[in-house]
Amino acid sequence: GELSHFDSTGQAHMVDVAEKKETHRIAIASGHIRMKPETLSIIQQGNAKKGDVLGIARIAAIMAAKRTSDLIPLCHPLALTRVAVDFSIDEAKASVICTAQVETVGKTGVEMEALTAVQVGLLTIYDMCKAVDRGMVMGDVRVLEKHGGKSGDWVSLIDQ
Amino acid sequence: GELSHFDSTGQAHMVDVAEKKETHRIAIASGHIRMKPETLSIIQQGNAKKGDVLGIARIAAIMAAKRTSDLIPLCHPLALTRVAVDFSIDEAKASVICTAQVETVGKTGVEMEALTAVQVGLLTIYDMCKAVDRGMVMGDVRVLEKHGGKSGDWVSLIDQ
Amino acid sequence: GELSHFDSTGQAHMVDVAEKKETHRIAIASGHIRMKPETLSIIQQGNAKKGDVLGIARIAAIMAAKRTSDLIPLCHPLALTRVAVDFSIDEAKASVICTAQVETVGKTGVEMEALTAVQVGLLTIYDMCKAVDRGMVMGDVRVLEKHGGKSGDWVSLIDQ
Amino acid sequence: GELSHFDSTGQAHMVDVAEKKETHRIAIASGHIRMKPETLSIIQQGNAKKGDVLGIARIAAIMAAKRTSDLIPLCHPLALTRVAVDFSIDEAKASVICTAQVETVGKTGVEMEALTAVQVGLLTIYDMCKAVDRGMVMGDVRVLEKHGGKSGDWVSLIDQ
Amino acid sequence: GELSHFDSTGQAHMVDVAEKKETHRIAIASGHIRMKPETLSIIQQGNAKKGDVLGIARIAAIMAAKRTSDLIPLCHPLALTRVAVDFSIDEAKASVICTAQVETVGKTGVEMEALTAVQVGLLTIYDMCKAVDRGMVMGDVRVLEKHGGKSGDWVSLIDQ
Amino acid sequence: GELSHFDSTGQAHMVDVAEKKETHRIAIASGHIRMKPETLSIIQQGNAKKGDVLGIARIAAIMAAKRTSDLIPLCHPLALTRVAVDFSIDEAKASVICTAQVETVGKTGVEMEALTAVQVGLLTIYDMCKAVDRGMVMGDVRVLEKHGGKSGDWVSLIDQ
Repeated sequence: GELSHFDSTGQAHMVDVAEKKETHRIAIASGHIRMKPETLSIIQQGNAKKGDVLGIARIAAIMAAKRTSDLIPLCHPLALTRVAVDFSIDEAKASVICTAQVETVGKTGVEMEALTAVQVGLLTIYDMCKAVDRGMVMGDVRVLEKHGGKSGDWVSLIDQ
Repeated sequence: GELSHFDSTGQAHMVDVAEKKETHRIAIASGHIRMKPETLSIIQQGNAKKGDVLGIARIAAIMAAKRTSDLIPLCHPLALTRVAVDFSIDEAKASVICTAQVETVGKTGVEMEALTAVQVGLLTIYDMCKAVDRGMVMGDVRVLEKHGGKSGDWVSLIDQ
Repeated sequence: GELSHFDSTGQAHMVDVAEKKETHRIAIASGHIRMKPETLSIIQQGNAKKGDVLGIARIAAIMAAKRTSDLIPLCHPLALTRVAVDFSIDEAKASVICTAQVETVGKTGVEMEALTAVQVGLLTIYDMCKAVDRGMVMGDVRVLEKHGGKSGDWVSLIDQ
Repeated sequence: GELSHFDSTGQAHMVDVAEKKETHRIAIASGHIRMKPETLSIIQQGNAKKGDVLGIARIAAIMAAKRTSDLIPLCHPLALTRVAVDFSIDEAKASVICTAQVETVGKTGVEMEALTAVQVGLLTIYDMCKAVDRGMVMGDVRVLEKHGGKSGDWVSLIDQ
Repeated sequence: GELSHFDSTGQAHMVDVAEKKETHRIAIASGHIRMKPETLSIIQQGNAKKGDVLGIARIAAIMAAKRTSDLIPLCHPLALTRVAVDFSIDEAKASVICTAQVETVGKTGVEMEALTAVQVGLLTIYDMCKAVDRGMVMGDVRVLEKHGGKSGDWVSLIDQ
Repeated sequence: GELSHFDSTGQAHMVDVAEKKETHRIAIASGHIRMKPETLSIIQQGNAKKGDVLGIARIAAIMAAKRTSDLIPLCHPLALTRVAVDFSIDEAKASVICTAQVETVGKTGVEMEALTAVQVGLLTIYDMCKAVDRGMVMGDVRVLEKHGGKSGDWVSLIDQ
């Protein structure tokens, strides 16, 4: 139950990963933003001619993945080898779901990069729609899968 | 129902705010991260001697508020005049709640800065505890209040 | 004929603008990228469903405008009040033309921000099309108009 | 004729390079800035005692090469192993020519880094001379050579 | 004796400056780097033709001043109106002295910007000379003067 | 006595390290900040409940280490594998001593990253205490040890 980000005297540090193997690592994270049905309609009608909210949010998410170690204090910098961001729509819940898959060949996992991509993707949707719907709520932001490294494969049991 | 971030031909732009008044603007946002009760216990015992997760998350949140316009494509850069970030604990829900209040004297609101602070604060908690609890979930990230500017005061009705 | 970015002993400095008036300032810059006609066709067919090169280049250009003072050593940081980036197509010359309009209410002009937006917009087009056309060439990058500040209105005489 | 930066449904992504070999990669790019002959004279007289425009532009160009993946949305981050930036003068055309050579040992090419260095080098010259010559024009920005990786050697046919 | 960067419960925050007046603020900071006399000779011979260590350090210092609020967690972002960095040589002590003057018209002082410029200026000298002199030592980094704001003029009494 | 950061014509460049071996590299740097005894007392009483100056300075120092190649013009970007920052107190000299250990598995050393961490750690202490003690002085910033790479082990002889 100890947190590896602290040394034995409780001081934060960026942990030593020099001896870790460089393996192919993959993380998938997702989250959603709930909104008024009217707001969702505007997003759904969007495209390169009428205002492509999701296209812009995707670019913001991909760029944010690359900035993760600048934002999260104890996160190791990593040369990402792949970032893919997907949006799907759940009309019943008036939500957009953002899923990000991030990969590297490196010494540490990429969960933080995947989560950061999702958070900034959702924030960008909020930014672009806030003029018509200030009450949007972001949630269910979590890691879905993680592969590679010493701990191997891990898949979330989402039905909580 | 039109999105101001797009012009009449559907092209994204950073909207013209030159004529907007510089007023004192305040935004408050919040969100939580749910975890295992054991993980929450570790955080609660934390302090400057045993590993201060929330202290580090607070710094990350404050610094992220200042980086908002770097992350959100169409967000105006703003000289923030105040950033305060608070964490509270909901033991019943095994959650940490993060609340950020951001202020400026400027031409645009600071909701995005407050939301970005919350998101990065929660992400930092995830990063520091992920070694013991990979299944943590972030949610209920929203704007609670907004003051100043043309639209004046706005308070979220949270009990949805 | 002296360069204001150097003091009397030839040392570079970020020049003193404290006494300059805050006025509404506008700069318009443009530039183009020439390519094979086939490459231009791919871009023209692009949209949010088939790959929107220009939409992505626009976002990159807008974000770059906000980073200008990070990139150009002696450039003053400025809170931009508007950034609009437009692309048009010259089929005869197999070129995409990028035009950026940047505005602020501030003490210094925004030519550098407009030029940086154009350059990064063109670079992003290059990046996205380089797999099919490595020989693309960027050119005619210049300031077209400038308004505000002590020097007032200035319009380029382009037919050189 | 397909663009690799988009997946089969037209969504932008940072393409998967995990399986690519790490090879020694080199890219050389160049471009020029045309100006009034008087402006060129000022630059030519420059040195560490009278204002070294090109020395400052070189530093800006080198630093920009390192920021490339922050600016270009779908560009992979890379640990550069060399950046060299050179300026030469074409008096007949009243131009400064900027050439950048960038190298890495990595999975992707460094054309974007070389082009970004050239663009920011030229922008910095513009910035430092704009007080005396607002009509300067940047052009002929292109990749000259590229070595390493699967595609091997490539040299531009510049017969300009 | 209380530190304003903490609230009444000991939590760090970026303090509220909304009500502070925008005044013309100036800060001057300095520091030195001591080295072997041979190293100092190399720097002294430097120029745009033989390697201009101080010219490069000056640019790094100016750019760093603009990044201060990115580096110092609780520092307010500010639109600087002037940055000037000077180097002088103390042959008796085999030292280079770096002095930075930073100005703004704003709500907070610019000591941190001046100190950051000095530190990064000295670090850049270290970087460029470390291949010949690894034992260089930086010191006496302090604020010399501060003007503007509520506290008015302050001048350091250096002979401590 | 030649500086490797300049080529044979005196032009600055980021030196070619492609052929250097990737070895485990370690650098340790330190520095101190002197203050009034009363100021030191405030810092010493600090903790997560009463204002943890050193905890915040540690985070700033770690984050700065990751930004080094953004700040120092000719410094190679590196994927750090460890950053640890420690503070100790010298009551007799009314000083806080900051020590940073930085590691990587890479082609270049990490002295600059360790020095940058120390400088920003000290600057952050200055920032947080400047309201009560403007005359604090930072000094003795130097590299203590360096391991790995072609030059192997190096230890500073500090007793100067």
